[in-house]
Amino acid sequence: MRLALINRTGGLEFLEDHIRAACPGARLEYWPSDAAREAEVAICWDPPDGTLADMPNLRLVHSIGAGVDRILADPTLPDVPVCRIRDDDLAVAMGEYCHWATLWFHRGLDAVTRNATAGHWHRFEQRPASQVPVCVLGLGDTGRHVACRLRDAGYPVRGWSRSPHDIPGVLCHAGPGALPLAIADAQVLICLLPLTPDTTGILGHATLSALPPGAAIVLCSRGEHLDRAAVVTLLRSGHLRGAVLDVFPQEPLPADDPLWHEPGVLVTPHMSALAKPRRIVAQIAENLRRLDRGDPLLNRVDRARGY
Amino acid sequence: MRLALINRTGGLEFLEDHIRAACPGARLEYWPSDAAREAEVAICWDPPDGTLADMPNLRLVHSIGAGVDRILADPTLPDVPVCRIRDDDLAVAMGEYCHWATLWFHRGLDAVTRNATAGHWHRFEQRPASQVPVCVLGLGDTGRHVACRLRDAGYPVRGWSRSPHDIPGVLCHAGPGALPLAIADAQVLICLLPLTPDTTGILGHATLSALPPGAAIVLCSRGEHLDRAAVVTLLRSGHLRGAVLDVFPQEPLPADDPLWHEPGVLVTPHMSALAKPRRIVAQIAENLRRLDRGDPLLNRVDRARGY
Repeated sequence: MRLALINRTGGLEFLEDHIRAACPGARLEYWPSDAAREAEVAICWDPPDGTLADMPNLRLVHSIGAGVDRILADPTLPDVPVCRIRDDDLAVAMGEYCHWATLWFHRGLDAVTRNATAGHWHRFEQRPASQVPVCVLGLGDTGRHVACRLRDAGYPVRGWSRSPHDIPGVLCHAGPGALPLAIADAQVLICLLPLTPDTTGILGHATLSALPPGAAIVLCSRGEHLDRAAVVTLLRSGHLRGAVLDVFPQEPLPADDPLWHEPGVLVTPHMSALAKPRRIVAQIAENLRRLDRGDPLLNRVDRARGY
Repeated sequence: MRLALINRTGGLEFLEDHIRAACPGARLEYWPSDAAREAEVAICWDPPDGTLADMPNLRLVHSIGAGVDRILADPTLPDVPVCRIRDDDLAVAMGEYCHWATLWFHRGLDAVTRNATAGHWHRFEQRPASQVPVCVLGLGDTGRHVACRLRDAGYPVRGWSRSPHDIPGVLCHAGPGALPLAIADAQVLICLLPLTPDTTGILGHATLSALPPGAAIVLCSRGEHLDRAAVVTLLRSGHLRGAVLDVFPQEPLPADDPLWHEPGVLVTPHMSALAKPRRIVAQIAENLRRLDRGDPLLNRVDRARGY
């Protein structure tokens, strides 16, 4: 089988040895090239619009991550199956990151580290976790894991998603109409939504100003979920306490971007949950075997829903 | 009953209303005063040497915290019972702080926040918790809770204490001879020991240099446990990755202390676990009732052990 590695900005070489080991019979080509154009399987992160439509033998598009928004955004995307990665380790890593960020705000460590740079000793009031409601937007594998982890740590957890979910001990809300209720008392708002036309810009002025005063946000989904001007305005007005931002429309965030130095913002380098290359490739290899045998593919994306 | 509030640097007024509410029949005096000298119960944090010996009616010394090292350090301490506070909420708060600090090092957030101040985007390798052994020194109520919490988060946890403990899923070591073994593979070393003559300076050059390269320390016990020169030397040599320090021999740490700005050190304002005044006073009030009735006192300190 012929495989093409496709990404707008390249950088997929880290997968090559793993693919050669897991798929010994496959031919591996890098986009852009004529050979890549002839491939039957596109292994991609962010394929430029039209790239996939220009592959006459294409039978499968496989994302190398949990998200497929960059792939589905191509209006010329041909009608072949699109699959994504699902990885329990990703959920665990995301749980660690979100738990860390929740403690950063809950225990005042954002202010304490700021004070430390000025040699300023100030002890803040200590609140129990039970007085710090957290809302998780997006209740897929990862969101569910994060919600349960924070619930187990003693936080009152609310969840919100497109379709109804039932998670013991988590107050789950569903649908656009329920968003204001889900976030009404959130001291920490964690965004783990898939990026779809419905969720683009969901963290805009209306949503963020509906949070209680002093709330903080943690963005681990996609940069396009956040209205950057709104968050800066609400940080400067004091309505928001802070923002831990791990994802951006353009990554890496340029060194001269003022967000790095916006008071209350912590920029992290899209590090919240990284899939191991071996794991990614094992799932792709399994789907290649299934494609070969005509068996149902794993983790196939519902293109209407967008994930 | 006459009660005296005694602390070298004052500042115990925050307890007054709670004591008046919980002990309506008691007379409350502040040291230094003749009336305080006549009290039968000394409620203290850090009484100057000789203060307690100069109280002819003294029947009970009650610490307002979990630690009694400042009280037992007085060579003239009279032979009356010494009691301390035990508070499950303290253990929970300490668990949060130590978990936060462990994630800070484990997920490279120490380096990420440093990079953020320079607008520098760099993603570090993501290690699973199972590859980050943590050692907890001190396995009292608090140490045990911290060890269990980190174990449940997936870290391989080792514990060390003076006397043997058995904690499921935690590799427990006991006694001075076992310290090198307990810390041999620790990527994060958390100190929660009581301060006694045996533990003073325990985090000196010998112990810290026996940690594996790249290890970090989290100090939540007493400043006197740490040899400050040793930690600075080993941070500068690169042997230690970092240090989160919450306690210091002199608190507040003076604004001009160079530790605030030592690369790799994060100073926090003795905030890891604060007892609620209401909780402290409820335990003291219960012991006053017991003293009155001649019943056994709660949380009485073994003066030979020091806790």
